[in-house]
Amino acid sequence: MKNRKIALKNRPVGMPLLSDFSNEEELMPVNREGEILLKSVYVSVDPYLRGKMNGTHPPIFELNEPVASKIIAEVIESNNENFKKGDYVSGYLNWVAYQVSDGNELQKIDSTTASLSAYLGVLGITGLSAYIALMDIGKPKKGETMVVSGAAGAVGTIVGQIGKIMGCKVVGIVSTDEKIVLLKTKFGYDEAINYKTTPDMKAAIAQLCPEGVDIYFDNVGGTISDGVIANMNNYGRIPVCGTISNYNDIEEQTGPSLLPIVVYKFLTIQGFLIGDHAARFPEVIAQLVAWLKDGKITYSETIIEGFDKLPEAFIGLFAGRNEGKMIVKIN
Amino acid sequence: MKNRKIALKNRPVGMPLLSDFSNEEELMPVNREGEILLKSVYVSVDPYLRGKMNGTHPPIFELNEPVASKIIAEVIESNNENFKKGDYVSGYLNWVAYQVSDGNELQKIDSTTASLSAYLGVLGITGLSAYIALMDIGKPKKGETMVVSGAAGAVGTIVGQIGKIMGCKVVGIVSTDEKIVLLKTKFGYDEAINYKTTPDMKAAIAQLCPEGVDIYFDNVGGTISDGVIANMNNYGRIPVCGTISNYNDIEEQTGPSLLPIVVYKFLTIQGFLIGDHAARFPEVIAQLVAWLKDGKITYSETIIEGFDKLPEAFIGLFAGRNEGKMIVKIN
Repeated sequence: MKNRKIALKNRPVGMPLLSDFSNEEELMPVNREGEILLKSVYVSVDPYLRGKMNGTHPPIFELNEPVASKIIAEVIESNNENFKKGDYVSGYLNWVAYQVSDGNELQKIDSTTASLSAYLGVLGITGLSAYIALMDIGKPKKGETMVVSGAAGAVGTIVGQIGKIMGCKVVGIVSTDEKIVLLKTKFGYDEAINYKTTPDMKAAIAQLCPEGVDIYFDNVGGTISDGVIANMNNYGRIPVCGTISNYNDIEEQTGPSLLPIVVYKFLTIQGFLIGDHAARFPEVIAQLVAWLKDGKITYSETIIEGFDKLPEAFIGLFAGRNEGKMIVKIN
Repeated sequence: MKNRKIALKNRPVGMPLLSDFSNEEELMPVNREGEILLKSVYVSVDPYLRGKMNGTHPPIFELNEPVASKIIAEVIESNNENFKKGDYVSGYLNWVAYQVSDGNELQKIDSTTASLSAYLGVLGITGLSAYIALMDIGKPKKGETMVVSGAAGAVGTIVGQIGKIMGCKVVGIVSTDEKIVLLKTKFGYDEAINYKTTPDMKAAIAQLCPEGVDIYFDNVGGTISDGVIANMNNYGRIPVCGTISNYNDIEEQTGPSLLPIVVYKFLTIQGFLIGDHAARFPEVIAQLVAWLKDGKITYSETIIEGFDKLPEAFIGLFAGRNEGKMIVKIN
């Protein structure tokens, strides 16, 4: 049996290309005493990985070493008493078909609570980020207006629904008219607009949010965010969960200076590191599971099949190819 | 006896001009039952007033009505049992020599604790803003590095000293070499630089702050702030107390987009409204008085004499004419 690996061949310049990745055969790893042999099942592809290829999201991937991300894997051999064959685990693992692990950084997954892939999305970093950034930074109050950019993405689809549970009016910004329909019919958004067909974002948000914007949950950055932020109400909160619009920029992005509106509207703009909140993960996941079971939230996944498709799925994130969480299933 | 009034004649376009203000005689006000007649003694001139002349700081001044700001006044006649002749009060009052008040929004001042003018500066909104913005948003910890813009100004001179009391390394940005000396000799700053002779603010801050910047206390905005923010450490905090560099802008200021660094350094950028913290004013003033008495903080005032000089003093703020708090003394 041969193993497969997808490594970073070149540091991308601008938009990543398929040629920035290599796809190689290699020897199967040896499963030593205390270790487990894992078979990758579902691989999470996420915009933040771009910052690990070069730039802003340390640690940076080594060239010619496998890319790594959150993966759900099956234990196919165990030399570790904490795991048995057939267990499913999640962890930050390599883009290889098979790998060994001492198990220390892995979480066991209860596949009877939710589907396995949900642990990469609504019950994984995606759902945790949506919940914690919204609650801690967004501080939603009943009757407030929240705008979400990247609203049809992994985090956006979850955060809009939590906003509705909290009693907010929720407006989404997306990249296609199909996603507008999706947000309003499946994810409970009150309104949604397609930024690609919206020439003046500031005016469009003003029209959709006549009472102004109290929370702007930002996954995108750039000119979309400039247009929304111009509509913030006094004491507005802006959790910044991502700025996908700039991840492939070669030159620094510019725009209107935000500091004046921060002063005269008393705004809070805050980024956060989901890893800092690990102590709260069990409690938050329990809440998300409860909402899932009650039908109060639903989730969407774009699952692409085949180990070889990993680079293509990752690159597709920047073209908005995903609806909800982008996942690659390894057969 | 005649009264005098300085009114807003035109809404300034760009930098305010003397011709935007009128200086008129008018009748003395009538001091009715329940009212007090006040003589203006010290008038605070502040950058934020620019936003009340047109634009961003509601409520906006009416044309041909007096400008208003924080004023220390003497009670020269009282028809109100809560006040007696000779009392000193502070409040948000008009730029007139004499005015009447029902006393409801005024605070009595104990002139034995500190000089009268101190209640416009270190023991007024200036000191309160410095303390509360630094403590609540800046959250200084021993050994951290804080950079302050507008460091020789009213808030900047106080905030640097509080930063030192909290155990931070404190670096100031100012507009003259004289102010560098002043910060280092009088206000305890560890380092200071003159932005007018610093071609590359980002590089200069990197050199002065080799361990990065944990707190950026911003009074200025604009390209100075862009240069500092590029040096922020992970989890950096940016209290935004003012953006004087843009108050006279006719066109929107642009610069590098801040949202990417907010995400990848987990920054918090926050504006605040000092009026929201009124319940804490007594406690904070008591702390500031204690530090003053212990010699742990000192303050600087630029006092300009003469009612007629009010517009000139105000305009001088934007040229950095003040060292510490800018105050006009009415003779």
